[in-house]
Amino acid sequence: MELDKLSNFSEWYQTVLFDAGIMDIRYPIKGMPVYMPWGFQSIENMFALLEKKLNETGHQKMLFPVAIPETTFSKETEHIKGFEDEVLWITHGGLTPLEERLVLRPTSETAMYPMFALWARSHADLPLMIYQTTCVYRHETKATRPLIRGREVYWNEAHTSHATFEEASKNVEEAVRIYSEFFKELCLPFRIFKRPEFDKFAGAVYTYAFDTVMPDGRSLQVGTAHNLGDNFARAYDVKYSTESGESKYAYQASYGVSMRAFAAVISIHGDKKGLKLPFTLSPIQIVFVPIYSKENMHAVDEKLRPIYESLKRTYRCTYDGSDKRPGDKFYFWELKGVPLRIEAGMRDLSENKVTLVDRNGTKKVIMIAELEKEIPLAVEAYHKKLYEDAMAFFNKHQFSANTIKELREIMDETRGMVRVGWCGDLACAEELDKLDVGKILGYEKDNEKERACIICGKKGKEVVISKSY
Amino acid sequence: MELDKLSNFSEWYQTVLFDAGIMDIRYPIKGMPVYMPWGFQSIENMFALLEKKLNETGHQKMLFPVAIPETTFSKETEHIKGFEDEVLWITHGGLTPLEERLVLRPTSETAMYPMFALWARSHADLPLMIYQTTCVYRHETKATRPLIRGREVYWNEAHTSHATFEEASKNVEEAVRIYSEFFKELCLPFRIFKRPEFDKFAGAVYTYAFDTVMPDGRSLQVGTAHNLGDNFARAYDVKYSTESGESKYAYQASYGVSMRAFAAVISIHGDKKGLKLPFTLSPIQIVFVPIYSKENMHAVDEKLRPIYESLKRTYRCTYDGSDKRPGDKFYFWELKGVPLRIEAGMRDLSENKVTLVDRNGTKKVIMIAELEKEIPLAVEAYHKKLYEDAMAFFNKHQFSANTIKELREIMDETRGMVRVGWCGDLACAEELDKLDVGKILGYEKDNEKERACIICGKKGKEVVISKSY
Repeated sequence: MELDKLSNFSEWYQTVLFDAGIMDIRYPIKGMPVYMPWGFQSIENMFALLEKKLNETGHQKMLFPVAIPETTFSKETEHIKGFEDEVLWITHGGLTPLEERLVLRPTSETAMYPMFALWARSHADLPLMIYQTTCVYRHETKATRPLIRGREVYWNEAHTSHATFEEASKNVEEAVRIYSEFFKELCLPFRIFKRPEFDKFAGAVYTYAFDTVMPDGRSLQVGTAHNLGDNFARAYDVKYSTESGESKYAYQASYGVSMRAFAAVISIHGDKKGLKLPFTLSPIQIVFVPIYSKENMHAVDEKLRPIYESLKRTYRCTYDGSDKRPGDKFYFWELKGVPLRIEAGMRDLSENKVTLVDRNGTKKVIMIAELEKEIPLAVEAYHKKLYEDAMAFFNKHQFSANTIKELREIMDETRGMVRVGWCGDLACAEELDKLDVGKILGYEKDNEKERACIICGKKGKEVVISKSY
Repeated sequence: MELDKLSNFSEWYQTVLFDAGIMDIRYPIKGMPVYMPWGFQSIENMFALLEKKLNETGHQKMLFPVAIPETTFSKETEHIKGFEDEVLWITHGGLTPLEERLVLRPTSETAMYPMFALWARSHADLPLMIYQTTCVYRHETKATRPLIRGREVYWNEAHTSHATFEEASKNVEEAVRIYSEFFKELCLPFRIFKRPEFDKFAGAVYTYAFDTVMPDGRSLQVGTAHNLGDNFARAYDVKYSTESGESKYAYQASYGVSMRAFAAVISIHGDKKGLKLPFTLSPIQIVFVPIYSKENMHAVDEKLRPIYESLKRTYRCTYDGSDKRPGDKFYFWELKGVPLRIEAGMRDLSENKVTLVDRNGTKKVIMIAELEKEIPLAVEAYHKKLYEDAMAFFNKHQFSANTIKELREIMDETRGMVRVGWCGDLACAEELDKLDVGKILGYEKDNEKERACIICGKKGKEVVISKSY
């Protein structure tokens, strides 16, 4: 390593993904890299954190088929328009053409809702709240980038059905609350936007999106929540009988977080030495590095190993007893982003002490008897610093612009999220596009303000613009 | 429920899968059912058990792409011959044909080994031991059956590379040991066979398979382990440099367990009331059923709930405080296969007692203070009985036959595993096939015996025959 992510983010990102064992992009299909053990385990830990929150709020985990028949897929007109250009088609089984072509799911509304129609019979069956953690597929033709834009996207998608529009809306708010908590636990700063009409999810009434800022000043969408109204319910006949026996369409919501959240974790927290993983995510949370001389190797192990054995009951620990030099061990585990390191030589150990070092470089000599108490404090301090550093960078990339000139200066210099006015007309949004000064992320959720349009000067509302991934 | 699995297994199986919330087969693609929450969580718990064993023996979890380019897929001649008739092909992205067709992985040798070629550079990189838990795809044209034969198969597949054939063989033995332990923890009886040449995995040197006996007397293959020799290494150029700097092909092994293991758990342990899940698998391990009258509802909850709150720190528990009658609650949770039930009314509770009932019907009144100690014992007894019952059935379905007449009588009556002699000639195996008296599962592992061929009478070895899924 030893690359600076701020001066050359793209190279830093590629290097760290490969060197830390996150992804290998040499797989022979563009946009379908291999998830390496360290990367995949971190991502699984990340989704386990989200799943826990979903389970606690009444969502149930399921698994739906990867394929959707063409006729089923095509039922919601807006949705199919939004996706037909970018889906992958299965057309043959063995040597013969299939009777009906199948789509590899690009998202699962059209796989799930025909089943919801069977399950949501009466008001007592509602709300239906389910999720799956799996891959979805898009035939990306743009440049791909591991964890950010690919043809195979690992994600968690939740889908719900409700009796009324209000209940669906309330559930979207609950999803926003769950995701906010989740991203905070990843120490990620974000803002929540209501996407403009032209950029909402195909088939939705409205879309909220979580965006963060990457080291190169571009925004990255890390999560979305859609209120689908009864659009899909009408297309897929998701009907229930009310208490009075009336047959009514259900109202639905869907929300998702993809591997992009992990791309943000890597990019926003990482430094010259490599990754800095949140404690919950890291496949190894604490690495033990004994400081040996040839003479006292056995004596050090004898003192330090029992501490490792004891902590490993509570945390994911490893004991690096390899014959590399301590400096090389530090370098290796720092590259991997392991949050805590416990190092000790004979002198420390004979005084019943070890040194606890976190991935931010904070060091503390600690009595062994105090370790169990000190670790949660160290984790808290480590996360606090991760979040503060991330917030400092994020806040430095929040701007406001009244003119295209101001906007362009920001986009040419640091990039970031820029508040401007927009009248709401598609023509002005397209004009912005042509000027290549960023795209409209949307209206900040629950914080709509009046502001004159940066293009036409007419009355409008404040929106946020960024260059985005 | 109230169906007998022995007299009508097929109907019993379908009913229990639907009623207990395991699978829903109404998804609009044949052979691609939906995994319902109770089913999917049980399967995830099952694979978590296997993954733990794989992690402990040095395997690392990864995720490979679902698709394989046609040219990559076609490199190993035997393998492609074995699979080309049954793979699903992705041919289009959006509205345009792909430059190269992609196969949906039917198994992952051909996805993984081109990457192994990049990773196995020197002898120090070996052994490579990885696995993934994911879906594979086959275009089954035969009748499909949920969890047994489908177009989307959820499974765990492990793949390894070694320096020598001996090390690969040793690792296959290790896989057999891991799987044996795993199936025993599921309380499943099995026998391990070396498949005959004509039935080994396409591209393997030899294949071991684990077979069990289903309630209808048919055998079900629940796991396989293949020694691939250097066949794939030669096709995919998996080479490493030895300590002396020589370039050599690696030797490989692959082994897998699919959702079929869960089909066996359901079928072999279940009864008229529904499922009987092993403790490790059940999404809920202990259900609390308060025995109420209207008057003492609050008092019972006040006494019983704290016990639930305390046990839930260690076990997956639920407290069924719904207003259903106790009998209906028992019925519901028995159908789901929950291993333990704790029930108590005011009288028991005022004497500081509860009743602990397992899914086999074993009842025990227990002092609340003893509960923590009693639960592991109850789990052990529950598993012991599951295993004994399963073994009793399994043993009753082991036979030996010297003539086709004897063989046919067994297959017409109870079915099962039948030991016969076979000369090893394909012609005699095909003759057996024509007689419709079962197929050859193979030679029992590490227990090869001489026995005259049941067809031609020539000198041969003992094999086992069954009607199989």
